[in-house]
Amino acid sequence: RSLATPARKTLRIGLIPADGIGREVIPAARRALEALGSDLPKLEFHNLLAGFDLFTRTGTALPRETVEVLKNGCDAALFGAVSSPSRKVAGYSSPIVALRKELDLYANIRPVASVAPDPKGKPAVDLIVVRENTECLYVKQETLTQTESGKEARATRLITEYASRRIGKMAFELALARPRKQVTIIHKSNVLSVTDGLFRETVRAVPQLPEVAGRFDSVGIAEQIVDSAVYRLFREPEIYDVMVAPNLYGDILSDAAAALVGSLGLVPSVNAGDSFVMGEPVHGSAPDIEGKGIANPLAAIRSAALMLRHLRYEDAADRVDTAVNDVIREGHTLTRDLGGKSSTDEVVEAVLRRL
Amino acid sequence: RSLATPARKTLRIGLIPADGIGREVIPAARRALEALGSDLPKLEFHNLLAGFDLFTRTGTALPRETVEVLKNGCDAALFGAVSSPSRKVAGYSSPIVALRKELDLYANIRPVASVAPDPKGKPAVDLIVVRENTECLYVKQETLTQTESGKEARATRLITEYASRRIGKMAFELALARPRKQVTIIHKSNVLSVTDGLFRETVRAVPQLPEVAGRFDSVGIAEQIVDSAVYRLFREPEIYDVMVAPNLYGDILSDAAAALVGSLGLVPSVNAGDSFVMGEPVHGSAPDIEGKGIANPLAAIRSAALMLRHLRYEDAADRVDTAVNDVIREGHTLTRDLGGKSSTDEVVEAVLRRL
Ligand SMILES: CC(C)[C@H](C(=O)O)[C@@H](O)C(=O)O
Ligand SMILES: CC(C)[C@H](C(=O)O)[C@@H](O)C(=O)O
Repeated sequence: RSLATPARKTLRIGLIPADGIGREVIPAARRALEALGSDLPKLEFHNLLAGFDLFTRTGTALPRETVEVLKNGCDAALFGAVSSPSRKVAGYSSPIVALRKELDLYANIRPVASVAPDPKGKPAVDLIVVRENTECLYVKQETLTQTESGKEARATRLITEYASRRIGKMAFELALARPRKQVTIIHKSNVLSVTDGLFRETVRAVPQLPEVAGRFDSVGIAEQIVDSAVYRLFREPEIYDVMVAPNLYGDILSDAAAALVGSLGLVPSVNAGDSFVMGEPVHGSAPDIEGKGIANPLAAIRSAALMLRHLRYEDAADRVDTAVNDVIREGHTLTRDLGGKSSTDEVVEAVLRRL
Repeated sequence: RSLATPARKTLRIGLIPADGIGREVIPAARRALEALGSDLPKLEFHNLLAGFDLFTRTGTALPRETVEVLKNGCDAALFGAVSSPSRKVAGYSSPIVALRKELDLYANIRPVASVAPDPKGKPAVDLIVVRENTECLYVKQETLTQTESGKEARATRLITEYASRRIGKMAFELALARPRKQVTIIHKSNVLSVTDGLFRETVRAVPQLPEVAGRFDSVGIAEQIVDSAVYRLFREPEIYDVMVAPNLYGDILSDAAAALVGSLGLVPSVNAGDSFVMGEPVHGSAPDIEGKGIANPLAAIRSAALMLRHLRYEDAADRVDTAVNDVIREGHTLTRDLGGKSSTDEVVEAVLRRL
């Protein structure tokens, strides 16, 4: 946290609103970034295409150009949300899953924290879901065969030592910077003894790695089987600090955790690799409210802050987070998901006024 | 529900307490069954072995004899809970997963309902998780290979049309008997378009099957992606009636739903096939409280009632459920998980007094 802010002259950010309310909340996040002024280098935005809407219009969900600009012309990115077809659509495949792999954004970091009524108080829920972002069932190796008793479909769930180790390191690194310093490994090795066994053992062994050299000795390790982890998340969320999980469990856990803090519309994430970071609100494209100007922009704005934090613009990130928390705490300017009546724009302006 | 009670002379029930508090709650369920007197035929109990403790003592988690007695000498069974080794143990494999497959108990039916304060009132949560019980990642086909970059583990996730159809039929059948008559299909076909696509399409097509002949026309169909299903389960549980899910999602969802009704110690299940039914509390073996006489017996007792209901002893099942609900409603004799101070035995006796 005390690392020096890097000496970039410009900060080049790709914006990929994609579908639905992604097109409302990404512009909101951009406005928050623009309001940070001299806390950041000159900002350069690149508007990029992706999504299911794009696919229906052009046959491509993730244009090559989007990937190229991100890889070669951006320091970071913000992604909105994708819609899912209500039926299988030939040739369509989720662009967010593809982007995570293309850019090797192997860690999906999802902090879920409630806002304490008193700014100095301790939030009731304060945890981070660290989700492996490149493998598990997300490798999308599926086959379909026709047998005498009907169709049979198979999917491969891949868990490697390599990916489990790097996500494990990320989890320990994040835990080290937190007061509680605890990593809870989520698995289902009572059924998946080989795949989840490998995940569990590899993450457990991280503190003993020679290259780590005792760095994580102060971090505690716990573990939970995924079904009871979800149960306990609801009953006693305070037992968790950093939860590290294979891809699909992490997906489910982070939505579950979001329910604890009032709304998915509040929960940010970053997809992080060793050389790139992409912010992304945890919520989806919300087709039911799309285009109405009532989407909650706070998850996207917090995702922008989390992206900045990852790029080591800690002060700028803190300013955004404080402004967002103040708006929530004050409680006058909230969107419908939080029981308010304000529009997306009104909430953005409330945040900007506090920046 | 109006089907005639079958004309059995004896009802032969296998009891498999297995590990931990399973050994405390299965005897409790037996006492409740014994108290039903003339509402049931003569009861014949068979005590059967299985479990991780048994494995550590004998090298076998599920003796052949247990399976044989269940198959050839029992009409139904009650299973307690299994412990999971804290590290991979060579040769050990979960006996409950094996039993479900051996007896082809393809449906895991898990009703989760809160108890309304007023006996005539509507419970706030009233849903059934119908979990496919034989395939998905539970086929346990896993491989481990050594590569240059470390170990790689793979598991197969199997979804067949055959199994999806029969679990779908079960879900529609259960929905038909409920006031709301709604089936919600849980899937992740935005990522797993082949496997979960097959599950979704097959369940959706159940009402059009020729053999069903319009029987399910009054049942509504909804669907939810698993991550947002868990989120919405916590935010608005009233939207769900019957949730039908592949094995692993069902496992997670039922634990999540249990958190809504106060304790896993209240949630029963049956593993049902076309010719056998096995009751099983949803909770685990709870090693932390094992042997202390404080485990909540209500999930096991309700599982016995659910088993009876499945065998068409509706009146007996109703009596047990009413007695359990009255004990909960009254609130004086509850175990610790529900904020009480009573022992397992005291709760059993409170139920027996009301039978
Ligand atoms: C849209 C979907 C492919 C995605 C996922 O499963 O990763 C979403 O649920 C998320 O959590 O970002
Ligand atoms: C013990 C375990 C194998 C089991 C399962 O995953 O099915 C349990 O969690 C359950 O829900 O009955």
